[in-house]
Amino acid sequence: MKKIYFTPGPSQIYPKLNLYIKEALSRDIMSLSHRSKDYVDIAQNTQHTLRKLLQIPSTHHIFFMSSSLESMERIIANCVKMQSFHLINGSFAEAFFNAAEAQGKKANILRFKPGERIDMDSVAIPKKTELICITQNETSNGSCIPMKDIYALKKRYPTIPIALDIVSSAPYPLVNFKKIDIAFFSVQKGFGLPSGLGILVVDDALVQKSKHRGYHDFPSLAQKELIFQTPETPNVLAIFLLGKVILDMINQGVGRMRKATEMKAKLIVEFINAHPDFGLLFITDTNVRSKTVLAIEVGNKVDVIIEKLKLKGFVVGKGYGIYKKTQIRIANFPQHSMRDFQRLIKEMGLILK
Amino acid sequence: MKKIYFTPGPSQIYPKLNLYIKEALSRDIMSLSHRSKDYVDIAQNTQHTLRKLLQIPSTHHIFFMSSSLESMERIIANCVKMQSFHLINGSFAEAFFNAAEAQGKKANILRFKPGERIDMDSVAIPKKTELICITQNETSNGSCIPMKDIYALKKRYPTIPIALDIVSSAPYPLVNFKKIDIAFFSVQKGFGLPSGLGILVVDDALVQKSKHRGYHDFPSLAQKELIFQTPETPNVLAIFLLGKVILDMINQGVGRMRKATEMKAKLIVEFINAHPDFGLLFITDTNVRSKTVLAIEVGNKVDVIIEKLKLKGFVVGKGYGIYKKTQIRIANFPQHSMRDFQRLIKEMGLILK
Repeated sequence: MKKIYFTPGPSQIYPKLNLYIKEALSRDIMSLSHRSKDYVDIAQNTQHTLRKLLQIPSTHHIFFMSSSLESMERIIANCVKMQSFHLINGSFAEAFFNAAEAQGKKANILRFKPGERIDMDSVAIPKKTELICITQNETSNGSCIPMKDIYALKKRYPTIPIALDIVSSAPYPLVNFKKIDIAFFSVQKGFGLPSGLGILVVDDALVQKSKHRGYHDFPSLAQKELIFQTPETPNVLAIFLLGKVILDMINQGVGRMRKATEMKAKLIVEFINAHPDFGLLFITDTNVRSKTVLAIEVGNKVDVIIEKLKLKGFVVGKGYGIYKKTQIRIANFPQHSMRDFQRLIKEMGLILK
Repeated sequence: MKKIYFTPGPSQIYPKLNLYIKEALSRDIMSLSHRSKDYVDIAQNTQHTLRKLLQIPSTHHIFFMSSSLESMERIIANCVKMQSFHLINGSFAEAFFNAAEAQGKKANILRFKPGERIDMDSVAIPKKTELICITQNETSNGSCIPMKDIYALKKRYPTIPIALDIVSSAPYPLVNFKKIDIAFFSVQKGFGLPSGLGILVVDDALVQKSKHRGYHDFPSLAQKELIFQTPETPNVLAIFLLGKVILDMINQGVGRMRKATEMKAKLIVEFINAHPDFGLLFITDTNVRSKTVLAIEVGNKVDVIIEKLKLKGFVVGKGYGIYKKTQIRIANFPQHSMRDFQRLIKEMGLILK
């Protein structure tokens, strides 16, 4: 039986990925030199479609990374000389903070609870802060920070750059890059690709300011980006596949995709609300509940639920870290269809019987 | 017409790669969680086959990187506090040196000419050197350093670790890890895989000594390696494919593969020696001529040769950097069969007519 993966990433692959891989094989994509015109055409197309899908303006660069942990490290190395600031309510915000700490930065933090909505008016950010690091969607507990709250913070601190982790929400949130300086994500989540490629979007002002040196310093990346290349031999296959997936997303309609994301999340929310014996939504405030990763408290039924669903072909994720034994997580990405969700919910209902 | 790529990397894909990718798709490899038992089994198998193929002892760790430029950066960051030493005769040795310079290390160098054999007895390495960086196979000009010369240097400086770039020679050279502390390569060359995965082999003594901090510091990598995982979400597909390719190499016979590499190189060398009107081998001393990347001086015929061969389905590489307009390069990797080389040489002969 063919399984469907609702795991938070790596996750279900994009429906047409098989076809795109076949095309890659027949067009010798995996043998192309990363300095050849054929490769440059592919990278240019991927950049172009990414800009279109996420409305990334020409003020911002698009760099290829190998993972989002790499993005975090490079962001700190390139943008923070002394001091960063971190909003933390989960394990991935913690990872961003760790990247700063590991590099010896003074990393100031504001911790808040998963499910708590921060009052941005009360956030006090030290004067010398060079970068505000925000995890817009916290994969570890299914919470998120509304974009309008982030913009409100930006309004209060207009001169401090913001770096936004949209790892497991992209391409769902519409990020206004007039207000957001940096954003990053990985392709094995909301793009349904194999893992091994991260995307890092950076305002040119930060590239110009970077004094960092190394093969992935922002100026070196930007210099190669000008000719649609990378300092290293990149993950050519993933760059090709990403361009294909995004083109398909654009053809399907981006607005429709966002709407579908909301409707699929609603299906799960309504099911859980109607079946408290199955479990409870971990994040109760709808303003800060992620639509792309839903965490559900199921107590000691985690293993039973996961096993029973797997037998029916549905793979959902365990809770993360401390929630491993009490939560399940359901990812809601563009590659998951409404039909997939309807079938999943039907099976979730049958478990109760 | 299906092309064969003799480019130095990315290069021709491994003959059975299509099958392995099909298997990956049917087994949902691209959807597996990188924390799941299924993934761990795959990573463990790849580690196991790598150890067998390259005779890597248990004293050495195997870390997954995203590229060899990353390997160079991480090696310097983890092993060099103040001072490194570099043998340089080409662009990739230069890149290793640049990684040290960029991190503010005192990087001492010994430059020598491509094709020159260094007298290791005359190499003077400063006392405080923490790491000797050697490019065993210099992709940019088709030269190499014989393993026995490297061991001779080690004998003179037994306490200074050696880091060996075998990017475009692996798996051909048999590295004695009793004498070599670090070695690294990428999979898009002699393993015939899509690019986006680097392998870094490191002696445990250097892991224990590392004071570096970051998600890819050696202690963090080693901690995850213990359970066959990685700090980040790695390139799961490439790790799976690498295990499959290596198992096939082992089944075909490693000794046979090494012998075939030598015989294929001999075919090219004999052809060139018999046809000076086609071109001349750039590296004349057979001791320091690479068997896996052959650079041929063809003067102003570069474009004509490359175009004519391409029309017949054979893709060879241009010279690198300053040699771009006067050389071609032919890669000789395990995925290239003797038959491929015989056909290539036949076409090279016809160009002369």
